[in-house]
Amino acid sequence: MRMSEGVEWAMHTCLNLTWLPTGQAVPAAKLAAFYRLPAAYLNKQLQALARAGVVSSTPGPRGGFQLARTPEKITLLDIVVAIEGPEEAFRCDELLKRGPGADPKTDYRQACLVSRAMRRADLAWRRELAGQTLADLKADVEQEYPASPGNTVNRFTALRA
Amino acid sequence: MRMSEGVEWAMHTCLNLTWLPTGQAVPAAKLAAFYRLPAAYLNKQLQALARAGVVSSTPGPRGGFQLARTPEKITLLDIVVAIEGPEEAFRCDELLKRGPGADPKTDYRQACLVSRAMRRADLAWRRELAGQTLADLKADVEQEYPASPGNTVNRFTALRA
Repeated sequence: MRMSEGVEWAMHTCLNLTWLPTGQAVPAAKLAAFYRLPAAYLNKQLQALARAGVVSSTPGPRGGFQLARTPEKITLLDIVVAIEGPEEAFRCDELLKRGPGADPKTDYRQACLVSRAMRRADLAWRRELAGQTLADLKADVEQEYPASPGNTVNRFTALRA
Repeated sequence: MRMSEGVEWAMHTCLNLTWLPTGQAVPAAKLAAFYRLPAAYLNKQLQALARAGVVSSTPGPRGGFQLARTPEKITLLDIVVAIEGPEEAFRCDELLKRGPGADPKTDYRQACLVSRAMRRADLAWRRELAGQTLADLKADVEQEYPASPGNTVNRFTALRA
């Protein structure tokens, strides 16, 4: 059970956008060039983030992507779910429907204690990710790596040259 | 990010084994027939559980699979890790190595705050699964569905007929 590499890309791309002036849209090609990522694949993640309302895109020659909300209103869970989808990690195919004493009318995703135990773990994971915003992450980075915001802006500027 | 269906199969198969007399080995074909699962695929999960030390297999005509430890000593995490592997769910390819100000000697899986935030969520998930044993699950099922142990034994007996 592993996430796609797109989660790492999306997470760092959103974080980098917090250091740019509000309202400044960055073309997808520049966001990809920042980490030398394949532009078509990063663009796929950007579209997913846009569909989820995490980033917004502006068309046109000066268009591009920016955060759709303030970093305080974007959680790490928002970003993960945008890329990986909302489904729970545990796949319950209601195996108990084929078991002895099965009731065809029962929803075993709710009734089955295996499914419920797995869901509790999934919720613990989601709670942890939902409890941290992009603003928290930004603040943590700025405290531990004070050069990061400047480095980020400088690289975007250089890419723009 | 979804687990394989093998996790559900393994979880229910291990749970069913708790209701059989200790020391009774069940052939893989019977474990598969219990839920009408494809024998070759369930066997793959059983081999993974055996490699992880969750079940043990006895060769020979009366051989088969049984739990390798008491249900008190098998956690839900043991079963999930046996099937899905020990890797963390978040894939960190150390994207920061390509970022501005990168230090080639730094291990960004440890230094990167994105990676650390994702690891905290992974740990919350693991803690939840590690905090519940197969004995807990067995007790919960017996309390909520008292007919389950008898139904399980009866079906195994019928399969044996």
